[in-house]
Amino acid sequence: MNIEPRILRGFRDYLPAQMIVRQKMISTIRGVYERYGFVPLDTPAMELLEVLTGEYGEESEMNIFQFRGPDENMVCLRFDLTVPLSRVVAMYPELPRPFKRYHVAPVWRKDKPQAGRFREFIQFDADIVGTSSMLADTEIICLIYDTMFALGLRRFLIKVNNRKVLNALIEFAGIDPFFANDVLRILDKLEKISLEGVKEELMKKGDPNVDQKTLPSSLRCLGLDEPTVDKLVRFISIQGSSDDILAQLEEYFRDFIPAQVGIAELKEIVANLNVIGIPKDNYRIDLSIARGLEYYTGPVYETTLLDLPGFGNVFSGGRFDKLIGRFQKEDIPATGASIGVDRLFAAMEELGMIDLYPSTAQILVTIFDRSRLADYQLITRELRQAGFPTELYMGENTSLGRQLQYADRQKIPLVIIIGSEEFEQNSVSVKDLRKTLGDTTKQKTVKREELVGYITSLLKSGG
Amino acid sequence: MNIEPRILRGFRDYLPAQMIVRQKMISTIRGVYERYGFVPLDTPAMELLEVLTGEYGEESEMNIFQFRGPDENMVCLRFDLTVPLSRVVAMYPELPRPFKRYHVAPVWRKDKPQAGRFREFIQFDADIVGTSSMLADTEIICLIYDTMFALGLRRFLIKVNNRKVLNALIEFAGIDPFFANDVLRILDKLEKISLEGVKEELMKKGDPNVDQKTLPSSLRCLGLDEPTVDKLVRFISIQGSSDDILAQLEEYFRDFIPAQVGIAELKEIVANLNVIGIPKDNYRIDLSIARGLEYYTGPVYETTLLDLPGFGNVFSGGRFDKLIGRFQKEDIPATGASIGVDRLFAAMEELGMIDLYPSTAQILVTIFDRSRLADYQLITRELRQAGFPTELYMGENTSLGRQLQYADRQKIPLVIIIGSEEFEQNSVSVKDLRKTLGDTTKQKTVKREELVGYITSLLKSGG
Repeated sequence: MNIEPRILRGFRDYLPAQMIVRQKMISTIRGVYERYGFVPLDTPAMELLEVLTGEYGEESEMNIFQFRGPDENMVCLRFDLTVPLSRVVAMYPELPRPFKRYHVAPVWRKDKPQAGRFREFIQFDADIVGTSSMLADTEIICLIYDTMFALGLRRFLIKVNNRKVLNALIEFAGIDPFFANDVLRILDKLEKISLEGVKEELMKKGDPNVDQKTLPSSLRCLGLDEPTVDKLVRFISIQGSSDDILAQLEEYFRDFIPAQVGIAELKEIVANLNVIGIPKDNYRIDLSIARGLEYYTGPVYETTLLDLPGFGNVFSGGRFDKLIGRFQKEDIPATGASIGVDRLFAAMEELGMIDLYPSTAQILVTIFDRSRLADYQLITRELRQAGFPTELYMGENTSLGRQLQYADRQKIPLVIIIGSEEFEQNSVSVKDLRKTLGDTTKQKTVKREELVGYITSLLKSGG
Repeated sequence: MNIEPRILRGFRDYLPAQMIVRQKMISTIRGVYERYGFVPLDTPAMELLEVLTGEYGEESEMNIFQFRGPDENMVCLRFDLTVPLSRVVAMYPELPRPFKRYHVAPVWRKDKPQAGRFREFIQFDADIVGTSSMLADTEIICLIYDTMFALGLRRFLIKVNNRKVLNALIEFAGIDPFFANDVLRILDKLEKISLEGVKEELMKKGDPNVDQKTLPSSLRCLGLDEPTVDKLVRFISIQGSSDDILAQLEEYFRDFIPAQVGIAELKEIVANLNVIGIPKDNYRIDLSIARGLEYYTGPVYETTLLDLPGFGNVFSGGRFDKLIGRFQKEDIPATGASIGVDRLFAAMEELGMIDLYPSTAQILVTIFDRSRLADYQLITRELRQAGFPTELYMGENTSLGRQLQYADRQKIPLVIIIGSEEFEQNSVSVKDLRKTLGDTTKQKTVKREELVGYITSLLKSGG
């Protein structure tokens, strides 16, 4: 008659050891964001379906958890934090401009679960709303750099591109703008499928009796001709340092007016990053970056880990000057980035950067003599009030061996033991389970009134 | 063609000023919980319907958001954090015993929204799993006390009762156990509807042609007779200090064996709280407390604010020794409590305890001379690296007046101004917008290299 304790496919629990690290990551990220003056926002997990969808293609919509809500309208679970932000900005005109907000919260997507891809994951977004200044885009890139750095990462690359330049490319190559996103998606695969693969996909011919525009994006064949593909290939072959790329870009688009604003924006960002002193090893213009979402309108960013090239990007974003305009008459410019906390967690785990501890408690007060429970409770309270995370052992099996085993398993460094001798002498024994000083564990008996001082010095010494 | 930016009924946004306070509350609560050695856990927002429901009455089930999931099974959004905990404990036998976990997360309920009652709210739970020791229940009560205290609350009362005593009462009064929860729910209304109201509800007769057991709980008429009601009334009339109540309880249940374990548990808890020194003004046995949820099996707790008597309870819980047994052969004893963060937030707001600040930034770097953007960016970076939450102004309207207005509205205390004179002299002007020293704002020009030191002293002085 028991119910099987199961979890839904594509979801996972964060047990304490993982949660302790995840919380530390979130608090590190928050620390950086707040130093930049971003302020927190929270929105409901659920939104009206019509509010969340609209700008998204049919494929994205299939990925949204949706159902009939209690008031009979269709509701859905948010799949990102950017659309809720746009709704908030449109709903509360009293918010300041610029509005710099951060938001850390789970999002949900129905995609088929795969290794490392879950249906629920935490995003940590920072966005600047209400300014089209490239200072804002520069700041987002600096924020990515500082956040990665604060998390202990060094070998990462922030790739920067600009959708205005990509849109100009589509025009320059004479491609029907309807297929712009299909083309950019293919160019974005450069690293995965190499130049030959990209060419092949661009030229692939479909059934001549089928209007490719009627097909879903993933099934469309573009059938581009040789000269068009050549133009595209020349474009994504522009490589080198950011300065090299800017010089080649100007050459490539010489006198082609539609590309000039995008190039100028890239130039300004690179100049700013140079001034601020972000290391050139950590950012670079990469013309193949397109970002899947169609709402980007200017600079876009993606961050990859140099030691995990196949892992994909962990911190990405861009400028979305048109998104808020969905909800009101005028557009409001905005830019920002989003860190996939759970993905980055997985990456850092793979890089061996994560130490798992099942507990943050530093002291276990054991129970030796059940007739003195009052004393054990009092000493526990005293240690807590002195600021030490302290556990009073309250398991059903009260042998001292079992209590020590519990401390050991939970990696609690210090154990308090008070037996009849200690009670008589008004003293306390402190056992140090850390083995950093050699193979033997230390145990020392101190006067009751010296306990807090002794433990302070012990924890300071690190064992 | 615009989409109206609307929020779902029964949901709300937390704008920055509120979120800053909510985050501070959560971090205060977490600090207390961690001092007690509780470790964090996180579980998915969604669970299989069959996992979440079962112990709940038909009314509760109506309150659960449920829908068909991507793998065609029925899924639902969690409505509390206790059932997910039970699933986790049953699924991962490798977790330690006792397992002391905390969990802060939103839960969802479909109830009709009312003033102050939302369909999404954050709970912050702490539970101790794997021990039936009253030390654990004592610890939960201490945790409630310390948490309320840390949040700045003083005038609150933790009411303690025991379901074993209540179950004994049902037996003692000779009531069909089927109606136990109906009876307890009515007794629980003592404060709201007074003794007369309670009596009336207990005696109310239903249609004699209808089997009351077939009706939903809210429609049942108990029709208890005078002597039975008299026994119940004598019971909830037991009032006074905790010690008084214990003495009267022993008298009331003299020689009635089924009540003795419950009374002993209450006695032990009161003795422990006495030893530890929790002020008697802040806790008391209250025999009317029943807790709605049917899974409680021993001590139960509710916390009310003395200055908001109508507000209801903000921090409640109890022992649930049978819940985990839903998922496996043996029961695992457990006890814990849950704080309604958003409800407590609302209460503290009503008590005037909440100061709202739209930002946590301490410095705004203004832009006076757009040809010197590099310098403004550098100084911003320097201040951030020194640890000050700093904003670089990047609004579209760049008049100095507008920039000062922005700082004022965002309550950012310090503003940096660097004009041509300052650039010439390699100095910086710092404007202090706080008015604590009188009606005039202070402005001082300091050498560039003295800036960080000056700001440190300024912020330390508090204006």
